Amino acid sequence: MNIKAIGAYSAAQPLEPMEISRREPGPHDVQIAIAYCGICHSDLHQVRAEWAGTLYPCVPGHEIVGRVVATGNHVKKYAVGDLVGVGCIVDSCRQCGECQDGLENYCDRMVGTYNAPTPDAPGHTLGGYSQQIVVDERYVLRITHPEAQLAAVAPLLCAGITTYSPLRHWQAGPGKKVGVVGIGGLGHMGIKLAHAMGAHVVAFTTSESKREAARALGADEVVVSRNADEMKAHLKSFDFILNTVAAPHNLDDFMVLLKRDGTMTLVGAPATPHAPPEVFNLILKRRAIAGSMIGGIPETQEMLDFCAEHGIVADIEMIRADQIEDAYERMLRGDVKYRFVIDSSTLTG
Amino acid sequence: MNIKAIGAYSAAQPLEPMEISRREPGPHDVQIAIAYCGICHSDLHQVRAEWAGTLYPCVPGHEIVGRVVATGNHVKKYAVGDLVGVGCIVDSCRQCGECQDGLENYCDRMVGTYNAPTPDAPGHTLGGYSQQIVVDERYVLRITHPEAQLAAVAPLLCAGITTYSPLRHWQAGPGKKVGVVGIGGLGHMGIKLAHAMGAHVVAFTTSESKREAARALGADEVVVSRNADEMKAHLKSFDFILNTVAAPHNLDDFMVLLKRDGTMTLVGAPATPHAPPEVFNLILKRRAIAGSMIGGIPETQEMLDFCAEHGIVADIEMIRADQIEDAYERMLRGDVKYRFVIDSSTLTG
Repeated sequence: MNIKAIGAYSAAQPLEPMEISRREPGPHDVQIAIAYCGICHSDLHQVRAEWAGTLYPCVPGHEIVGRVVATGNHVKKYAVGDLVGVGCIVDSCRQCGECQDGLENYCDRMVGTYNAPTPDAPGHTLGGYSQQIVVDERYVLRITHPEAQLAAVAPLLCAGITTYSPLRHWQAGPGKKVGVVGIGGLGHMGIKLAHAMGAHVVAFTTSESKREAARALGADEVVVSRNADEMKAHLKSFDFILNTVAAPHNLDDFMVLLKRDGTMTLVGAPATPHAPPEVFNLILKRRAIAGSMIGGIPETQEMLDFCAEHGIVADIEMIRADQIEDAYERMLRGDVKYRFVIDSSTLTG
Repeated sequence: MNIKAIGAYSAAQPLEPMEISRREPGPHDVQIAIAYCGICHSDLHQVRAEWAGTLYPCVPGHEIVGRVVATGNHVKKYAVGDLVGVGCIVDSCRQCGECQDGLENYCDRMVGTYNAPTPDAPGHTLGGYSQQIVVDERYVLRITHPEAQLAAVAPLLCAGITTYSPLRHWQAGPGKKVGVVGIGGLGHMGIKLAHAMGAHVVAFTTSESKREAARALGADEVVVSRNADEMKAHLKSFDFILNTVAAPHNLDDFMVLLKRDGTMTLVGAPATPHAPPEVFNLILKRRAIAGSMIGGIPETQEMLDFCAEHGIVADIEMIRADQIEDAYERMLRGDVKYRFVIDSSTLTG
């Protein structure tokens, strides 16, 4: 079937309306009418070829929510009319240890929602800046939030799970002091989630102006990281720090805030490297620097259920499809609180 | 009491015989006649002021073994004649969470065996390149190896515990694939210990010539890290890598060998930084880079008992006190299999 989408034909061209085709639903497929799609910084990196290997035409988008409009004969979990989501993963090998452990995000053959090889036309996956998507039910998530919140649920599919997964893995919860570095699309979810998990949450920001906003999101304390005295007051005190800042910065400033056996986990990768971390800061307190990438399918469902139960959604600003390029520019300036979401009904090109 | 030692009066001078004083044993002290003391690379860094803050006169040495010659009135665990050891720690605050957890090595007020503040003359601690030492029994270890092995036990007090502690913490054992990078004083102990713990051990060396030696130490496989094909065969396969190399090198070469959730732990800190590790290598498999420093007192006793039970000692070359400067030069060239140990009876200057 042919549907409307918005994407780019090359790195040098802006996004523009285009028609793309989706496969007819196979026996295990769910066909979804997309209601909203969040805008992730990865979308911009990929569509502008700032990351290697962008395939054109490129249709980004992996924070997808909508309603089931058709199902294959063998689909068991979903029925027409269900509210569902699709995140960063639409397929994987299903055989390896990672897939068997429900950590498809670490499968070597994970198929991303856009820019990944697929037998479907045009040979690579096309994402959620589009009217519909067809996905194997194994990679479809159920949404139990009230429908009125649907647009604000979209960013949970990437920003939500990318922060939820490391917070769970490193056991954020009551009695734990957890830092969240950066208050953007990912960071604002990290603060909400860590707070809901019961941790004592300290938000780190470079700008004094975000202090109140961070408190409103659920931070118990806010530290302006350029203030050396404020930073010093937290030396050796954190169990875990979730670092959402992808721009190169001094990791040591935060490493020294970890207590013995503390871990700082990076969920963003800088285009140019961070300065090398000081090895003594690792050795002297058995600290660790780790990384984490999105989350597995079962964990994404767990996150959505947790958010529904705790009334958690993203803070969003809704835009029309013809405003995406503007939204990218504003995102680059940090001028968004905290996630843009495309109203897919405006894909009328 | 006054005793003979060998140490340096300044960074510019070689080690020379000197007389130092030790406190009379207090109620909780054990007075030890030192039989042997191992030579650790840290000794050289400290005595030559390659690390900040060296206090002179400097008497290095923290791989100390010997026999108890006197005990204070309240000493409970040791009696005259016992074989004992002293490692890198001779005191700590005894109050903090680290001390209460038996991880005195991470206490902020840990007192090192040399170059640390003490009320004793001359105001900083003096190490094991000396005839005797007086230490609170809390920081003295029992040696149950046969006395004939005593000299080869000495390096366990630093090289042994520095590798044992991270291997235990990151759960080296049956079913685990463990890498040991570098086959020197630390690495050769890491191979022996990981092997005895039941792990599948892969030793990494830059020199083809060490292949057989690494196998003899207990490595199941040996990889020459300059051989790209050999390295590639181990991609994404390690649970844990113990990296004993303090010289700056490319950490990414080893990070990519870790499987999902694997950790590489550094036990050496380079004088100039390693190149910054690639963040994507952390994120894509939830890998971690960590550090670890020696080990706590209870764990050091556990390590000594483990080694006695498994017949493990260091491979050593015995030297006289007047050969220490030569030994330093040979150590810098990597010309030692694998640890120099000073025969303290030669401290006759």
